[in-house]
Order: sequence, then C-alpha cells, then structure tokens
Amino acid sequence: MLHDLFPPGIQHVLDLAGIFVFATAGALLAVRKNFDVFGIAVLALVTALGGGLFRDLVIGAVPPAAFGELSFFVTPLVAAAIVFFLHPEVQRINRAINVFDAAGLGLFSVSGTIKAYEYGLGLTASAALGVATAVGGGVLRDVLANEVPSLLRDREMYAVPALVGATMVALCIAFEVLNPVTSGVAVVTTFLLRLGAMRLHWKAPLAWNRRSSVQEDAPDRRP
Amino acid sequence: MLHDLFPPGIQHVLDLAGIFVFATAGALLAVRKNFDVFGIAVLALVTALGGGLFRDLVIGAVPPAAFGELSFFVTPLVAAAIVFFLHPEVQRINRAINVFDAAGLGLFSVSGTIKAYEYGLGLTASAALGVATAVGGGVLRDVLANEVPSLLRDREMYAVPALVGATMVALCIAFEVLNPVTSGVAVVTTFLLRLGAMRLHWKAPLAWNRRSSVQEDAPDRRP
Amino acid sequence: MLHDLFPPGIQHVLDLAGIFVFATAGALLAVRKNFDVFGIAVLALVTALGGGLFRDLVIGAVPPAAFGELSFFVTPLVAAAIVFFLHPEVQRINRAINVFDAAGLGLFSVSGTIKAYEYGLGLTASAALGVATAVGGGVLRDVLANEVPSLLRDREMYAVPALVGATMVALCIAFEVLNPVTSGVAVVTTFLLRLGAMRLHWKAPLAWNRRSSVQEDAPDRRP
Repeated sequence: MLHDLFPPGIQHVLDLAGIFVFATAGALLAVRKNFDVFGIAVLALVTALGGGLFRDLVIGAVPPAAFGELSFFVTPLVAAAIVFFLHPEVQRINRAINVFDAAGLGLFSVSGTIKAYEYGLGLTASAALGVATAVGGGVLRDVLANEVPSLLRDREMYAVPALVGATMVALCIAFEVLNPVTSGVAVVTTFLLRLGAMRLHWKAPLAWNRRSSVQEDAPDRRP
Repeated sequence: MLHDLFPPGIQHVLDLAGIFVFATAGALLAVRKNFDVFGIAVLALVTALGGGLFRDLVIGAVPPAAFGELSFFVTPLVAAAIVFFLHPEVQRINRAINVFDAAGLGLFSVSGTIKAYEYGLGLTASAALGVATAVGGGVLRDVLANEVPSLLRDREMYAVPALVGATMVALCIAFEVLNPVTSGVAVVTTFLLRLGAMRLHWKAPLAWNRRSSVQEDAPDRRP
Repeated sequence: MLHDLFPPGIQHVLDLAGIFVFATAGALLAVRKNFDVFGIAVLALVTALGGGLFRDLVIGAVPPAAFGELSFFVTPLVAAAIVFFLHPEVQRINRAINVFDAAGLGLFSVSGTIKAYEYGLGLTASAALGVATAVGGGVLRDVLANEVPSLLRDREMYAVPALVGATMVALCIAFEVLNPVTSGVAVVTTFLLRLGAMRLHWKAPLAWNRRSSVQEDAPDRRP
C-alpha cells in the first residue's frame, strides 16, 4: 500500500521532525512579536499542524491526525517550551532551523500528496493538497500574527520546491513507480531546491510591468 | 431533482464564469498589494474557491468540488496568469469586472443555497450557507491580504443582494416552486440588485448613533 | 449517556446564554472598529459560533450545530441588533458582559470537551478541542477585525481557566465520575478562575528574558 512507503517507525520519526521544526519557526515568530506564553504555544501548534489539519478536513479524514495522534500534539508544545526559555540560543542557530524547515517542506509535500491520493483525490488535486499541507501552516501562522503571509509577498519561491516535490510524487503514482526510493528522491529534491533557492536568493517575479518599480508602487509594504 | 435546475452543461459553464470573475478580482488585489506570482495565484484560488470550499466542509461534501473538479482548479490559475501579464488592461475594464462579479454573486448565492438544501440543511441554514458561498471567498481573500474584509466595513451592501437571492430560493423550495425559471429569476434579481446598489451608491448603516460622526470615531480607519 | 449531563432544556438555555454573550462581545468590537451593520452581524455570528463550528468540523459532526439548530443562528443576530441600537448602554454594562463572558468560557470549554469525547477523540485531544471551542470564536473575531488575537498577546490568561475546566472534565471521564455535579463544578471553577484573573490582573509571562524589557522590544505593538 501507498502509506507503507517507509517503514512505519521511520515515517513517524520523520513526521515528528517536520512538526518540530515548523513549530519552532512558529514559536520564534511569536517571540519576535512579543506574544505571551499562550501566543507562543498557539503559534507553534498552528504552524506545525495547520497544513495537515486543512488536508485532513478536505479529504474527510476525521478526526484529523493532529487530534488523533498524541505525539503530534505534544511535539509542538515541547518546541514552544524550548523557544520560550532558550529563544536567543534558538535564533542564533537560525541557519540550522532553515535547513530543518527545508526538510519539513519536503516531507510534508510528499506525504501530503500521498495521503490525499489514498483518500481518493485525483492526481492534480492530490499534488495541490500536498503543497497546501506543506505551506498551509505557515500561512495560518502569519494570518494569526496579523502579517501578510510571507508566502504571498516575500518572493522567496517557498512554494516552488513543494510544488516540484508534489508533482514528482503525482507523476510517480501516474507511472506506477511510487516506492520508498522514488518518494525519498522527491523529498530530497524538494529539500535541495529549497536550500538552493535560499543560497542563491532566487526571486519570484512580481506582476509583469511592476518589476522595475517595486519600491514606488508599494506604499503599503511594511518595513 | 433540485440540481437539475439547469441543464448540466449550462450549469457548469455558469459555475466556471463565476469562478473566473471572482479569481480575477482576487488576482487584481494581489497585484495592487505588490504580491509576487504565488501571491497572485493563491489569492485567485482562494477568492474563487474559498466560499464553495467552506460550504462543502460544512455540509460534509468531501472532497469539496474545488478539489474534485479539475476545471474548478485550473480556471482561477488561468485568470491569475491573465492578470499577471495584462493587469493594466484588466484594471481598465474594471467596470466590466464589476458586472461579472455581480453575476458571480447571483450564481453562487443561488447554487450554494440549493446545494446546502440537497445535503439536508434546513431552509434558513441553507440560505445562510448560500450567502456564505457567495461572499466567503472575498472575505478569505481580504484576510490573507491582511485587510479588514470589505464586506464588514465598506458599507457597500454587498451582502444584501446575496441575501435576497438566497431567500428567494429558500421560499421557492418552501412553496415547492423551485425550477429553472424561478431560480433564474433569483439569479437575475441578485445581479440587478448588486448593479443597482453600485450605481445608486446605497450605503449600509453604521451602528445607530455613529452615523453622524464617522470620521471622528474612526482613528483606526485606514485611508 | 454523557450528553445527558444536564436536563436537555437547561443545557439548551445555557448554550444560548453562552452564544448570546459571545455574540455581544463580537458586535461591540465591530462597533468600536466602525464596521457597518453587516460587519456587526458577521462578527456577532463568528464570535458566538466559530469555536463550535471548528470543533464540529474536526470531529466530523456535519452539519455543525451552528447550521443545524435554528436558535443557535438567530441568537447572535438578536445580540447584534441590540448592540446596533443600544451600544452605548451595552458598553456601560461592560463589567456585566465580562461576567457573562466568563460564564460562556466555562460552559463552552466543558461542553466542547464532552462532545469531542463522545465523538471518539482521546482525552487529551478532547480537552484541547474543548479549549478551542471556548476560545476559537474570539480568535476568529480578531482575525476578521484585522487585529492580533488578544488571546495571543494580551497576557490576560484567558486560556488558563478554559484549560483548567477542560482538564477537569477529562479527568472526570478518566476516573468515570463525570456527572451533572462534577461537570457543573468544572464550569463554576472555570468561571471563578476567569473572574479572579480579571480582578487580580494576573499576567501571562512573555518569553523568558523579554520580561523586563517589554516596551523597548515591542515596536510593532499597537497602542
């Protein structure tokens, strides 16, 4: 079966790792915004579990994994507690967090696509939902923090690696070659693409004729 | 059956037209906010599909039409691509877009009410969900763009035509006279009411004794 | 059965009371933000029904109570109408509203936990969803009003009483002593804790080393 891609134990550890790093990113934003301890916990939970929660509601997998699996719920709280006490140290290893976040992006887009397909969605819809699983938590985090989601504005190409990974999985399913090796390749490709985009400062384009005049056209752009 | 109101082919074309114009409005807001290409695509998708997605989650129609019907997913992306390249031209035909948006409002409030009733909701709840189908995408769009939803503040009476159309459908169901003609009348009434509200600049009231002192009382009102 | 905790009539009256006070709080925020009559109605509905709607979607109880029970839908509209006409008077009894809000917090966290458990969630997940039922509507209200949710930032300990009430219910279920008396005790404990937190100005902590430097570190804190 599809969900036996990885041995269950390994799959679970990978899921928890992705949840942990996403939660850390959420908790750090909460500290930066001067939220209180509940804000830190809520932003950690929402960032880590929001994407998967949306996916599970769409495919009708209730109760969602976020509420069915205790370790999925406790892990973000552990991340929040660590950030609460050690946030200067955590921020200092920001580069390491970005690497883990890239790994989470790869894992969530691939596993999200597979789970959506298992629940009967078409290939395109499965890939779209895989991308939503990977980026949805971050969008919810930014909405709760009352910021424009960085996905929509930061020109960071954050969605592109997730899109590539999800598409690779969909193609593997279409050609019936999905297995632990090919899905692992999709995860690693997503991961490396994200690292490359950060390293090389790839920029997503703005709308066509706005490219040369970003500063002037953006009075509502916050500093 | 209720969903045979219009011949299936015509119903589908009408749905796609409504999705297209709502997506165009979302993409234009993204351009105005200087979002990148992903922001344009996401806002087009959310504006066009958000209302129906909410309705389908509430009535338990999973996977929602937004993920089950490929053309519903591709149409907003086409609208986003057109806006990406041609947004000055698209903005110039803003008046035409408003007309199409009014048509979308009529189609979505009527079809949303009917679908909710088919899934077993009561008449009042069906009408409420029909209104939510019609206006929900725009609210989600504004939340993602980090603006107060124009529905809540702009005094444009945007919800009134949708409310009238949805109520007409509920009454037709109650009196067992729902058919292609009566539901068509509800769509057209909604459409014309919306155009009239724009033309005549109807204003929704503020809370009772705030009416004469809007400017002074509104320090947080953005320009 | 669990949901026979209170006689059905009393349970229903308590639910409506909680919905009414939450709706009043939402409508008052809408007036303060100078929203129009639709903004007042929408914020009343979302504040009162949003938490329960989220809970019902997560546990798969479709259609959610918010759309299945007509009185749940009408009550927030009545509250919105009262606030629309009488908001200066309503604001003058702000202290009374806070007392009712505390009661709503107790009722929603306890009844939310019980309903989640009845639908098969584990004890921890049920308690978490009970808390989400109690505080979710307020978070949605603030997101729609384009404010940082006060839950995340105001250091008011608003979540703590809900957390205590939900945990008491979960423990009662675990030890098989849940009955009208014990769940009533949980409601009252939540209620009194919330009143005590307000009276004594309990403050939730900020992240560890930010405690002594809140003002300097918070350039993005709105007045």
